[in-house]
Amino acid sequence: MNEFDLIARLTHSLPGNNTVLTGVGDDCAVLDLGMPDQLILFKTDAVVEEIHFTRGTPPEKIGRKALARCLSDIAAMAGTPTAALVTIALPKEFDPDFISKIYEGLNALAEKFHVAVVGGETTTNPERILISISLLGTVSRGKQVLRSGAKAGDAIFVTGELGGSIEGRHLDFEPRLAEARWLAEHFHIHAMLDLSDGLAGDLKHILKAGKMGAEILKPALPVSRSAKLRAREHGPGYKPATLAALTDGEDFELLFTVASQDAVKLLDAWKKEFPDLKLTCIGKIVAGDGILLRDKTGAHKFSGSGYEHFSSSKADGQT
Amino acid sequence: MNEFDLIARLTHSLPGNNTVLTGVGDDCAVLDLGMPDQLILFKTDAVVEEIHFTRGTPPEKIGRKALARCLSDIAAMAGTPTAALVTIALPKEFDPDFISKIYEGLNALAEKFHVAVVGGETTTNPERILISISLLGTVSRGKQVLRSGAKAGDAIFVTGELGGSIEGRHLDFEPRLAEARWLAEHFHIHAMLDLSDGLAGDLKHILKAGKMGAEILKPALPVSRSAKLRAREHGPGYKPATLAALTDGEDFELLFTVASQDAVKLLDAWKKEFPDLKLTCIGKIVAGDGILLRDKTGAHKFSGSGYEHFSSSKADGQT
Repeated sequence: MNEFDLIARLTHSLPGNNTVLTGVGDDCAVLDLGMPDQLILFKTDAVVEEIHFTRGTPPEKIGRKALARCLSDIAAMAGTPTAALVTIALPKEFDPDFISKIYEGLNALAEKFHVAVVGGETTTNPERILISISLLGTVSRGKQVLRSGAKAGDAIFVTGELGGSIEGRHLDFEPRLAEARWLAEHFHIHAMLDLSDGLAGDLKHILKAGKMGAEILKPALPVSRSAKLRAREHGPGYKPATLAALTDGEDFELLFTVASQDAVKLLDAWKKEFPDLKLTCIGKIVAGDGILLRDKTGAHKFSGSGYEHFSSSKADGQT
Repeated sequence: MNEFDLIARLTHSLPGNNTVLTGVGDDCAVLDLGMPDQLILFKTDAVVEEIHFTRGTPPEKIGRKALARCLSDIAAMAGTPTAALVTIALPKEFDPDFISKIYEGLNALAEKFHVAVVGGETTTNPERILISISLLGTVSRGKQVLRSGAKAGDAIFVTGELGGSIEGRHLDFEPRLAEARWLAEHFHIHAMLDLSDGLAGDLKHILKAGKMGAEILKPALPVSRSAKLRAREHGPGYKPATLAALTDGEDFELLFTVASQDAVKLLDAWKKEFPDLKLTCIGKIVAGDGILLRDKTGAHKFSGSGYEHFSSSKADGQT
C-alpha cells in the first residue's frame, strides 16, 4: 500500500461539524467560525531530515523552507497567514546553535509576512530532526479559491519558472501570497493550487475534481534556467528540461485557471502589477481526461507525473 | 543545554502581530481574529513512539491519546475544540491496519467532542511513528483562563486523582472540557492549567507568573488507587504514593485557583454538577516562593518536580 492509498483509506470517513466549508483534499481546510467578513484557513506541513533537507543544509534555510511551504498553501487559497505553531522533534544530542538558526530563518520569513509565532513544542525524535508547522490564516469570505472549479475551455496559468528546484530554489522560493490575493480580488479564478509535487501531478488534482483533461503547449512551458542547465550538464539520456518542468517537485509556484475570455486581460494587468514575475498561459482545460502535451508534431498523451519523479516529494501525502 | 533552556532561548524573541492576546507560555495561544463574541485557541502537540507509546500500545489508544492531550490544553483555557489536523510520520514499512486503528481511536474521540478532522499529512520518519496534532478551538471573549492570575490567599483545586497514570490512565484519560467551561462560566477562576508534567512541576508555572509560593496539604492530596498500588507492590525504597501524586506526569487533570471566599461555594456547586468527579482543595497560594508541603509535623520545603521524575515526559517542552 503506498501512501496515497493509505490517505484515501484514512480520510474515507472523518468526523466533521458545521464549521467545515472545505475539509480534506485542498491546500488548506476552510472553516467558518462566524467572523463577519472572513473565513479561517488551517494547514499543517512537516519537513524531515534526509528527506526535505540534510544536516548540510544551512539551518536558516531549513527553518525558512518549513514555514514557506505552509505559506504557499495559504497563498493557494488566496489567503493571508496569521499565526504559526512550530513543533520541532530533535535527537537527544542536538546542537543548540543549529536549532537557533533554524528558528532565525523561520522567524525572519514570519516577520516578512506579518505572521506571529505563538508557540509550539520541542519533543524527541532520536534519529533525525523533524519540523512540523501549523499555520492559521484568513481569507475574505467568498474569495477562497479551491482546487475544484475549473471548467472546460479555461486557460491554465502558472507563475514563475518550473523545474530544477532541487538546485536551490526549494530552499529559497517566495510564497506567492500577494500575487494570489491580487488574482482573487481582480479576476474570477476558477481553480488554484501551489505546485509542490510537480506540474503534471498537481494538475491532476484540478482535473480530478471535474473529470476533465488538459492540453499543455509544450513550447510554452516556462522552463527554469536550473532545469535547462541540469539537462545540459547531464547530457543525452538524462531527463530533458521540459520533462523536468512537468515533473520536478517543490516549485511552489501558483497553478490556476480562468475563463479563456479573461486570459489576455489578466496577462496585461499582471505585467503592470508584477513586472518582475513571469506569468505564463501554458494551455487549456478540455473535455476528456488526462494530460495531452502538444508540440509541432501533434498532441501526445502524457503519462508521467510529478510524484513519481521527484524523490524528495515521494514521502509526502497532503490531505 | 536541556530542552527547557533551549525553549527559553528559542522563544526569547518571536515575531508577533496584533491578533496575539496570549502567545508562548500558556496551554494554548489565544488570538483575536475579530469574531464578535469569541477568541481563537491554537495548540499543537506530538506523541512519539517509544516515548509516549510503544508498538505494544493498542493503536486505537495511541490515536486517542494524541488528540486527548491537545483537547486537555483547550480545556485548560476553558475553551471548546473545533477542528484538528493530523500529521503522522511513518516508517517506510508501515502496517496499514495499525495506522487505520490509530485513526479510529482519534476519530472516535473527535466525534465525542464534535471536533472536525479537516486534513493533515502523512510523511516519512524512517525509525518510528510520530503523530502531531494541531487543534483549533474557541473560547468566549473574556472567559479564557490563563496560567497567570493567581493571587496570594487563593485556594488551589485539582480535579480527579493524581499519580500512577502510567498504569493506564495516560491512554484513557478524559479531557475536562465541560468541567473547565462550567468553572469559567460560574466562578472567577484566577489561573488554570492541565497537569501534564506532574502537580509540583506544573504548579510552578502558576507560581512563576506572579512570583508566589504554594502551601500544599499533604494529607489532602487525592492520590490515585494506581499510585497507591504501585507504591505497595514495590515496597519501601520505592516512591511513596503521595510523592507519585506530586510528581508523576500525564494526569491531565485541571489545576486551578480561586479566591478563598469562593472555595466552599465552588465545592458545593461542583458536587451537584459533577457528582462523579472528585474535586479537591489541596492548599493555598502564599507569599514567598516555591512549594511548602504541610503535614502533621509542620511545613517542609518541597524541592522535587514532576519533570525530573517521569521519564515519559522528559522529552517534552511545551511552549
